[in-house]
Amino acid sequence: MTGIPQFKDVVDASERLQGHAVATPMLESAVVNRRLGGRLLLKAEPLQHTGSFKFRGAFNRLSRLTVQERSAGVVAFSSGNHAQGVAAAALHLGVPATIVMPSDAPGVKTESTRELGAEVISYDRRRQSREEIAAGLARERGAVLVPSFDDFYVIAGQGTLGLEFIRQASQADACLDELIVPCGGGGLIAGCALAANELSPRTSVFSAEPSRFNDHELSLAEGRKVRNRAGSTSICDALLAPEPGELTFEINRTRLCGGLSVSDDDVCLAMAFAFRHFKLVVEPGGAVALAAVLAGRRKVEGRTIGIVCSGGNVDRKVFADAIGSDGLVG
Amino acid sequence: MTGIPQFKDVVDASERLQGHAVATPMLESAVVNRRLGGRLLLKAEPLQHTGSFKFRGAFNRLSRLTVQERSAGVVAFSSGNHAQGVAAAALHLGVPATIVMPSDAPGVKTESTRELGAEVISYDRRRQSREEIAAGLARERGAVLVPSFDDFYVIAGQGTLGLEFIRQASQADACLDELIVPCGGGGLIAGCALAANELSPRTSVFSAEPSRFNDHELSLAEGRKVRNRAGSTSICDALLAPEPGELTFEINRTRLCGGLSVSDDDVCLAMAFAFRHFKLVVEPGGAVALAAVLAGRRKVEGRTIGIVCSGGNVDRKVFADAIGSDGLVG
Repeated sequence: MTGIPQFKDVVDASERLQGHAVATPMLESAVVNRRLGGRLLLKAEPLQHTGSFKFRGAFNRLSRLTVQERSAGVVAFSSGNHAQGVAAAALHLGVPATIVMPSDAPGVKTESTRELGAEVISYDRRRQSREEIAAGLARERGAVLVPSFDDFYVIAGQGTLGLEFIRQASQADACLDELIVPCGGGGLIAGCALAANELSPRTSVFSAEPSRFNDHELSLAEGRKVRNRAGSTSICDALLAPEPGELTFEINRTRLCGGLSVSDDDVCLAMAFAFRHFKLVVEPGGAVALAAVLAGRRKVEGRTIGIVCSGGNVDRKVFADAIGSDGLVG
Repeated sequence: MTGIPQFKDVVDASERLQGHAVATPMLESAVVNRRLGGRLLLKAEPLQHTGSFKFRGAFNRLSRLTVQERSAGVVAFSSGNHAQGVAAAALHLGVPATIVMPSDAPGVKTESTRELGAEVISYDRRRQSREEIAAGLARERGAVLVPSFDDFYVIAGQGTLGLEFIRQASQADACLDELIVPCGGGGLIAGCALAANELSPRTSVFSAEPSRFNDHELSLAEGRKVRNRAGSTSICDALLAPEPGELTFEINRTRLCGGLSVSDDDVCLAMAFAFRHFKLVVEPGGAVALAAVLAGRRKVEGRTIGIVCSGGNVDRKVFADAIGSDGLVG
């Protein structure tokens, strides 16, 4: 399928995922709401299969393979979460999967990908092109390449998170004033925006990014795709895409209200906050939306703010250091 | 209400709690199931209001107060989780709450209790009797004392966790061969046993305890209440009750299949495992059932085992140390 996915494609994906993906819970804390003077609703996607939202898009994409494509298998490249999502969806559907992963990806992500039965091929992030390696493998094996964000079915699949979230909020008698979503290549937020714009048109959707990887914030402000400056680093290993995708930016350009960005310190405080108040393990990239709220980028007082915590695959040392940084939030 | 609660009292509590307590999710991991060769279903109760199951029993008890009792308020004593559960239920229902807590309780528990609007009165665990302090306060203020486990409505309220769990398992096409539940005074497991025996009679129910606080294991083996030896310690601060309760043991004596016990090291490994595979923050006492499974106390291979993770209120240093202990489980 080519072209831009629409709301109906998110609904269609939602039906495909029924009984396969986890309908992850929406969490809320009386103590947190009292502190913030408003209502903070948190979508707990670390509880998804493989610990991140990536299972949704991967499953939707793989569920469309023809019988012939299924037997030749799939190839994907990923810093980690998409790898696991594709591996788990492939395992579920009995499709062979090969994943190209950087040699410096968090150990927990590469190990889990292997445990899900996928073949993992490592490459050097600074010297090799993962795109070329993956394309070569796909050609050689006749396998289908599954992009991590810039794909019709992947975007529609990620959108099921937004669909669920809006419905869960509604069941809790809440209407989101704002929805803040972590953003790397922009697939998750594009899908969520399709759902939110249709089901809850008064909800403003904002992207959240690490401050030196704020390509969406800059691109939205300028109305055209802007690349991140090369050579930056962030602990948010899941959000290091160099620029917005083609398809995703086509959607996000008109549907988002703007971009927010946060420092790595803000992210660590947010991870500590989620540990303490929501008992949830959130990885750095998964915590940027919560970080944006806690750092005061958007006002919660007197309002209802929805934030997506998009993943929880974090090495224990990084997590232990982050919860040790909890100085400001008690 | 006096006497022993029955299954119908758990159902009644479940109706009271509807829309107030969180129907916490049941979690499952493909990687974990592959490793264990069976099906492990985990009830994620750290996601309950106040981070533990205690809200259930407290809410059920407080919802039965007369108008006069509500205005005089409630008193409870607790090492932490029951404190927060009573405080949150009281806040919910507009009832004043006073909580007697040991001065060495985890800081996260006392702070959260205060933030929920309760008055906290500290005492020295080694030199003062919390029972006497609480009874004195109740007398003085005309307040109702809310016991942490040995109470008709508290037991029935905790049982709603078991009711939910059995139903969630059934929706996932699973029938539990065994259900393993953390056990301090025995209120949670008593309520869960009432639900399991009725809805899933083939499910064997086991208690899990720290090895030097295995009063249920010993009591079940001997058929009479046995006290723990004095002077022991454990990191499982929520499970330090000296002996089974009167009401709870009356239920547990005939309904449980036996007791399991684990070391503090087993508990730390289980906390690390829940962090890694379920993205869930579990406190030491909340992790004993998972610890029993991982330590091989019960066989998972070819079977379906339900475990309750009962709470997640843990200081960050304890948690950071525990996830650092993850040597054996990768």
